[in-house]
Amino acid sequence: MQEQKIKKIALLTGGGDCPGLNAVIRAVTRTAILKYGYEVIGYIFGYRGLYNNDFIPLTLDKVSGIGHKGGTILYSSNKDNLFDYQVEENGEIVKKDVSDVAIENLKKEGVDAIVVIGGDGTLTSARDFSRKGINVIGVPKTIDNDLPATEVTFGFNTAVEVATEALDRLHTTAESHHRVMLLEVMGRNAGWIALHSGLAGSADVILIPEIPYDLHKVAEKIEMRQREGKKFTIIVVAEGAKPKDGDVVVAKVVDDSPDPIRLGGIANKLAADLEKIIKNQEIRATILGHIQRGGITSAYDRILSTRYGVAATELIHEGKFGNMVTLKEDKISYEALEKVIGHTRVVEPDGELIQTARSIGVSFGD
Amino acid sequence: MQEQKIKKIALLTGGGDCPGLNAVIRAVTRTAILKYGYEVIGYIFGYRGLYNNDFIPLTLDKVSGIGHKGGTILYSSNKDNLFDYQVEENGEIVKKDVSDVAIENLKKEGVDAIVVIGGDGTLTSARDFSRKGINVIGVPKTIDNDLPATEVTFGFNTAVEVATEALDRLHTTAESHHRVMLLEVMGRNAGWIALHSGLAGSADVILIPEIPYDLHKVAEKIEMRQREGKKFTIIVVAEGAKPKDGDVVVAKVVDDSPDPIRLGGIANKLAADLEKIIKNQEIRATILGHIQRGGITSAYDRILSTRYGVAATELIHEGKFGNMVTLKEDKISYEALEKVIGHTRVVEPDGELIQTARSIGVSFGD
Amino acid sequence: MQEQKIKKIALLTGGGDCPGLNAVIRAVTRTAILKYGYEVIGYIFGYRGLYNNDFIPLTLDKVSGIGHKGGTILYSSNKDNLFDYQVEENGEIVKKDVSDVAIENLKKEGVDAIVVIGGDGTLTSARDFSRKGINVIGVPKTIDNDLPATEVTFGFNTAVEVATEALDRLHTTAESHHRVMLLEVMGRNAGWIALHSGLAGSADVILIPEIPYDLHKVAEKIEMRQREGKKFTIIVVAEGAKPKDGDVVVAKVVDDSPDPIRLGGIANKLAADLEKIIKNQEIRATILGHIQRGGITSAYDRILSTRYGVAATELIHEGKFGNMVTLKEDKISYEALEKVIGHTRVVEPDGELIQTARSIGVSFGD
Amino acid sequence: MQEQKIKKIALLTGGGDCPGLNAVIRAVTRTAILKYGYEVIGYIFGYRGLYNNDFIPLTLDKVSGIGHKGGTILYSSNKDNLFDYQVEENGEIVKKDVSDVAIENLKKEGVDAIVVIGGDGTLTSARDFSRKGINVIGVPKTIDNDLPATEVTFGFNTAVEVATEALDRLHTTAESHHRVMLLEVMGRNAGWIALHSGLAGSADVILIPEIPYDLHKVAEKIEMRQREGKKFTIIVVAEGAKPKDGDVVVAKVVDDSPDPIRLGGIANKLAADLEKIIKNQEIRATILGHIQRGGITSAYDRILSTRYGVAATELIHEGKFGNMVTLKEDKISYEALEKVIGHTRVVEPDGELIQTARSIGVSFGD
Repeated sequence: MQEQKIKKIALLTGGGDCPGLNAVIRAVTRTAILKYGYEVIGYIFGYRGLYNNDFIPLTLDKVSGIGHKGGTILYSSNKDNLFDYQVEENGEIVKKDVSDVAIENLKKEGVDAIVVIGGDGTLTSARDFSRKGINVIGVPKTIDNDLPATEVTFGFNTAVEVATEALDRLHTTAESHHRVMLLEVMGRNAGWIALHSGLAGSADVILIPEIPYDLHKVAEKIEMRQREGKKFTIIVVAEGAKPKDGDVVVAKVVDDSPDPIRLGGIANKLAADLEKIIKNQEIRATILGHIQRGGITSAYDRILSTRYGVAATELIHEGKFGNMVTLKEDKISYEALEKVIGHTRVVEPDGELIQTARSIGVSFGD
Repeated sequence: MQEQKIKKIALLTGGGDCPGLNAVIRAVTRTAILKYGYEVIGYIFGYRGLYNNDFIPLTLDKVSGIGHKGGTILYSSNKDNLFDYQVEENGEIVKKDVSDVAIENLKKEGVDAIVVIGGDGTLTSARDFSRKGINVIGVPKTIDNDLPATEVTFGFNTAVEVATEALDRLHTTAESHHRVMLLEVMGRNAGWIALHSGLAGSADVILIPEIPYDLHKVAEKIEMRQREGKKFTIIVVAEGAKPKDGDVVVAKVVDDSPDPIRLGGIANKLAADLEKIIKNQEIRATILGHIQRGGITSAYDRILSTRYGVAATELIHEGKFGNMVTLKEDKISYEALEKVIGHTRVVEPDGELIQTARSIGVSFGD
Repeated sequence: MQEQKIKKIALLTGGGDCPGLNAVIRAVTRTAILKYGYEVIGYIFGYRGLYNNDFIPLTLDKVSGIGHKGGTILYSSNKDNLFDYQVEENGEIVKKDVSDVAIENLKKEGVDAIVVIGGDGTLTSARDFSRKGINVIGVPKTIDNDLPATEVTFGFNTAVEVATEALDRLHTTAESHHRVMLLEVMGRNAGWIALHSGLAGSADVILIPEIPYDLHKVAEKIEMRQREGKKFTIIVVAEGAKPKDGDVVVAKVVDDSPDPIRLGGIANKLAADLEKIIKNQEIRATILGHIQRGGITSAYDRILSTRYGVAATELIHEGKFGNMVTLKEDKISYEALEKVIGHTRVVEPDGELIQTARSIGVSFGD
Repeated sequence: MQEQKIKKIALLTGGGDCPGLNAVIRAVTRTAILKYGYEVIGYIFGYRGLYNNDFIPLTLDKVSGIGHKGGTILYSSNKDNLFDYQVEENGEIVKKDVSDVAIENLKKEGVDAIVVIGGDGTLTSARDFSRKGINVIGVPKTIDNDLPATEVTFGFNTAVEVATEALDRLHTTAESHHRVMLLEVMGRNAGWIALHSGLAGSADVILIPEIPYDLHKVAEKIEMRQREGKKFTIIVVAEGAKPKDGDVVVAKVVDDSPDPIRLGGIANKLAADLEKIIKNQEIRATILGHIQRGGITSAYDRILSTRYGVAATELIHEGKFGNMVTLKEDKISYEALEKVIGHTRVVEPDGELIQTARSIGVSFGD
C-alpha cells in the first residue's frame, strides 16, 4: 500500500435515507480536509451519479450545519446497481454491467478512494468494485439495525425514539377510551425497532418476524389484561411480523381491481382479525411509516455517524481498503466487505432483550 | 338564579380524546375547590357513567400533575347518547331515552351543576339536559377546531404541532429521494389541521374538504416544481378532502371480501392515482392517525384549557347555565348551547389564511 | 401612491434573534417574487448592512427550507442606530447621523420599498426613515410579546413552549427531592413568558415585573404547600421581576472586583433569599437564557410569521407605507409606525389571565 | 445460597435524581411479582426511609405508567449515610452509626433482599450493609456516566440529548449574531456529557476536567474561525473543567458578602475571561442546570434501566448478593460491590472519542 498517494476521495450514499447520513458525510469531509489535506467530492444520487459522473465538491462550507439533519445532501436512490443497470440501447431498455463506466469516471476525476455508505445492496456493489481494484471503504447504513458485523447502525436510535414517542402518545388515547392500539413500525426481516420501542414504550405485546405469532395468544393477552382491570392494550408490530403456520386468519382482503392501491400493512389486518375474536373491544391501528426515518437526528446517532465517518477516513489513510467500518463491543473496528455481505442480523428469540421483555410481562404472541 | 345554593358540581368528558381535557378537569376542580369551596365529582366514561352513576371524587390530589397529559382521567366514550341509548330489555337490545335515569342520579348525588366537555354530539345532549332543567355548562372540544361560536378549541394546537413535526421529518426523506410525500391528517369536515400544518410545514399542496381538488391540477403542481428544479413535493391532505365532481379517478379499489379490513384512507388512494398520472415519480403516503391526538399537551393548549375550565366554573358561580364557554377575538366569553349546536365551522375558501397560503405559492389543487 | 412603480424591495432584520424571522423572510420573498414579480434583496446584519450597502439577493432558492429554522439568514445586530451611529472620523470614534448614507444606498440599488423586521428600537429607526420619505413597512418582532398594537408577536409561542418543557423537566426533580425549583425566563419589562409558561407548566408561584413581589408572601406559599403535603414548589420568575418597595432582601452580593463577571440573575438571588427565610428546604435556580430564543420554530410561530410576511408585502403592493403589520382579534391588520413606537404592552395585573391563574391557586407573591 | 427462601424484596433510590430510576423500579417490581411471585416494598426517600421504616408497597398498579417519567416515585435524598447519620440526642445534633436500626427494620418487615439504586455514595453504604450480612444488589446510577465497571449508566443518554437540543438552539442565535455561545453542562469529575453533547451538537470547543484548558488556546480557536469566515463559535464546558496550572485568569470575582449567593458557574467566568482577551466579540453563557436531569426519559435510557432492573431481580433469584449489575460490551453482567466503589471512570484524554473529535477539528483548549 502506498498511503502517501491519496489526494482525492469520493463519497456516495445509497439505499433508503437514514438519520445520520449527513453526519457521516460531514465527518469524512472534515477529517479528510483538516487532518489529511485530501480533496473530497460527493457523487449525486448514489451509484447513478457515479455512472453519470455527476458530483459536487465537498468543502468545509458545504458540510457546515448539516450534522443534525436527516436525509442526505448527496441524495440517494435505492435501486441502482451498476453491475446490472437499466440503460437504453437502440430504443430499448436493457440491463447491463456498466461498472467500467463508473471506474473510468473515478480515474478521470483522479479519485483515489471512495467511501460508500449504504445497506446490504449498496455494499454488495461496493465489494464488487473492490474486487475490480477500486479502493473502497464501506460504511454500514440500515435503519432496521439488521446488518451483521456491526452491533448498532446509525438511524436506528432515532427511529426507536420516534416510535417510542408515538407509543407514548397512543397510550393516553388507549387508556382514555379503553382501546387496543396497534403501532406498526419498520422492520421487514428483523424486529429490532419493534423490540426496542416496544420495551421503551411499555408495550404489552410485541410482534416481530423472528417470533411468529398466534393470533389467539395475542387475543388472550388482551383479555387477560381486561380481567386484571387494565382495559387497554398497546401492541407494537414490525412490518415483517408473521403469523405461525396454520394460524387462523379471520379477516380477508380481496383487492382484485386492475389498479390495486397499496393496502395498509399488517397492523390494519391484525386489527381486523383481532376485532373478529374479541367482541366489544375497539381496536385501532396506526402505521408510523416514513416519519421514523427522517427529521432531526438523535444525539446518539450523530455521535455514532461521526465515529464511523472518521474511522472510514482513517482506513483510507492507512490504506486498508475493501473493508467496512464496524462497531463491536462499543469499539470502532472494521471487517472485510467480502465477509459482511448477504447476511441479516436478526433478533435472537431467546436473547437477553427478549428475556428481559418476557420478565416484565411482555407477550410475543407465541 | 340562586347562586349561593351551589355546593356540589360534576364533570364529564365525551367524544374522542383530545390534548387539554385533563387541563380543563384540573382547572375546574381547582377553581371549584379553592375559590368557591364546591365539592367536585367526575362521571366515568362520559354519559355512560352518568347513566350508571359511576363517578369518582375530584380532589386537589386527584388532579395534581395531570395538566400536561393527553387523554382524560375521566375516560371517554364517543357513542353514548342517553336520549337514544342502547339498553337490554327482555333479552333484546333496544334504544330508548334514559335521560331521566341520569337526572335522577344527579339529584341523588346532590349535584347542583354539571360541566360537560365535548364536541357537537356531546354538547347536543348537554343542551337537551339543559332543556330538562339541569344546570349545564358546556366546554367545546374538538381536535378538528370546527366548532362555531369559538375561534380556537384546545387540542388543535397540539395536533398542528405534531403534524408539522411529521412534515419536517418527511421533508428530509422527500428531498433526499426526490419523492412526492403525502401526509394525511385529521379533518373529516373541515381542513383546519391540514391548512395550519401545511402552512407551518412548508407544504406545496394542501387538500381540504372545503376546496374540492382536481387530480390533474395536483399533478401539474408536482410537474411544475420538477421543471423548476425542485424534484420533491410535499402534500398535506385532510382525511375528508374530496375530488371535484367529475374528477377522473384513475386507481380503483375493490374490496368485496366478506370481512373487509379498514383501508388506508384517502392519502393511499391519492398516491395511487398520482402515480398513474406522473410517471417515474416515487410517491409515498403516510397516515398520521391517532398520533396527532394523544401525548403531551402543548403549552398553548394547556393555557386555553385552563382558561375554559376557570371560565366554566365562573359561569356556574354566576348561575349562567345553559351556556358554552367560548373564545372570541382572544377573549373568553360564552354563548347559549341552543345556538351553538349542529353547525360546523369550516375553512372559508377565500379567507385570509387561504389567501396567505396562495400568496406564497401553495396549491389547493383547484 | 403609484403602486405600479414597485420593482425591487429590500428586507432587514434588527435586534435580538427570534424564532420566526426566517419564516417572515421566506413569506415576503415568495409573495414578492411569485405574486408580484418584485426583485428582493436582504441587507446583512440589520441597519449596519444598509449603511455598508452589504446585501444579498433573496431568491426562491435562497429562502427554500428556512421556514422552520430559528435565527435569521440575514443576521442581526441589536445595537446599530443609523441616526446616531458610531463611526471613526480622524482617528476618533464619534456618533453621528448617517441615515443619508443609507438612503443613498437604497436609491443606488433602486430599492422602492423596505420591510424592516424588529423590535421597538429597530422600528423607531424605521419610522425615522419613513419620515425622511423612504417607503417602509414594519414587522413587529419581540420574543417578550410586549409590543403594543399587536396582540401576539412571533417567537413568543416558541419561547413559551421551551420554557414549559423546562418546567415539566424541573417538576420531576422538584417532586423527587422535595425541592423548591426556580426557573428564570425572559421578560425585562413584561411578564408574558413567565405568565404563560407558568400557567402551562403548573407553576405554584409566578413573579412578573407588573406585580412586585413580597418575599415573605412567596415563602408563605411554599410553607402552605408543605403543610398541605406538597413538599415541592415550582416558581417561574421573569428576569425583570421586582420586589415591593421596602421588601426585606436578606442575602446580599458584593462584587467589587475590578473585572466583575455577570452574575446569575434574579433567580439565583431569590433562591438565596428564600433559603434565609425557609430553613431545611433545598432551593435550586435555573436560568433558561438563550435556549428560549433559538432553534426549531413552533408551528404557531411559523404561521404567524408567514401571515405577517405576506401582509407586509401586500401593504407594499397597496402603497400603504409607514405602517406596521399587526394582529388584532386574530385578524391581520396594520397601524402607523408613528403610533406604535415607544410603548410597552405589559401584563394587566387584574386581566383575565392573571385572574385565571389566581383562580387555580397560583400566587404572584403579592 | 438458599434461593428458595426469597419472599419479599425492597427497593430504594439514593442520590440525585436521574431519568430511568422509575423504569428500574418498574422492571424490578414487575419481574419480582410476575416472574417470581415476590412481594415488593419501596423505602421512601432513600436510606432515610430505611432508617424510619417508611415504605410503600410496590404493586403492578403502583408502577403502571411510570416507565417514561423522570424522577423517582420513591423520592430520593442525596445526603443520608446511615453509617454516619445525623440524629438528635439529648437536644444535640450528633453523628452516629444507625445502620443497625435499618437492619432491624429490614428484619421486622421480613425483607429478604434489597435493591439499592444509586451512585458511588449510595453504593458505598450498600456495600457496607452487604458486609453486615444484608442481601444487597446494587444498580449503578449517575447522570455523569462516571461509574467504573459499567460502560453506560441510565440517565446519561437523556442528559446528552437534552444538552444537544440546547446546543442546536444556541447555534441559530450564535450564527445570527456572530456570537460566541458557551453552554455549561453537568460533569464535576468527568466530561462525558460535555464530550458527547459537544460531538453531537457540533461544538467547536469542548472543555472537560480531564484535559485542563489554556484560555489563550480557546481564544485562538475563536479567532482562527473568524479568520476563516466563521464568525461564531460554540463552546461546551463541563462544570468541572479546569484551567491549566499557571493559566492566566483575567477576570476575577470577589464576593465577600456575609451572605454570598451562589455564583453562576464556570461558564460565566469563562465568558468574562474570554471577553478580556477577544475584543469586539459578544460572548454569552448559558448554564443548562437541572433541566438536563429531569423530564421524559429517552427510549435508550428506558431500555437500559429495564435491563438493569430485570438483571437485579435475577441476581436476587440466583442468590448472587453483594453485587452490582453492569453493562459491559453491551452485555448485562455484574461485579462485586467491593470492587466497584470509590473509583471514577473519566474520559481518557487520548481515547477514541477524543481522537474522533480532534479529527473533525474540535479543540479541547489544550
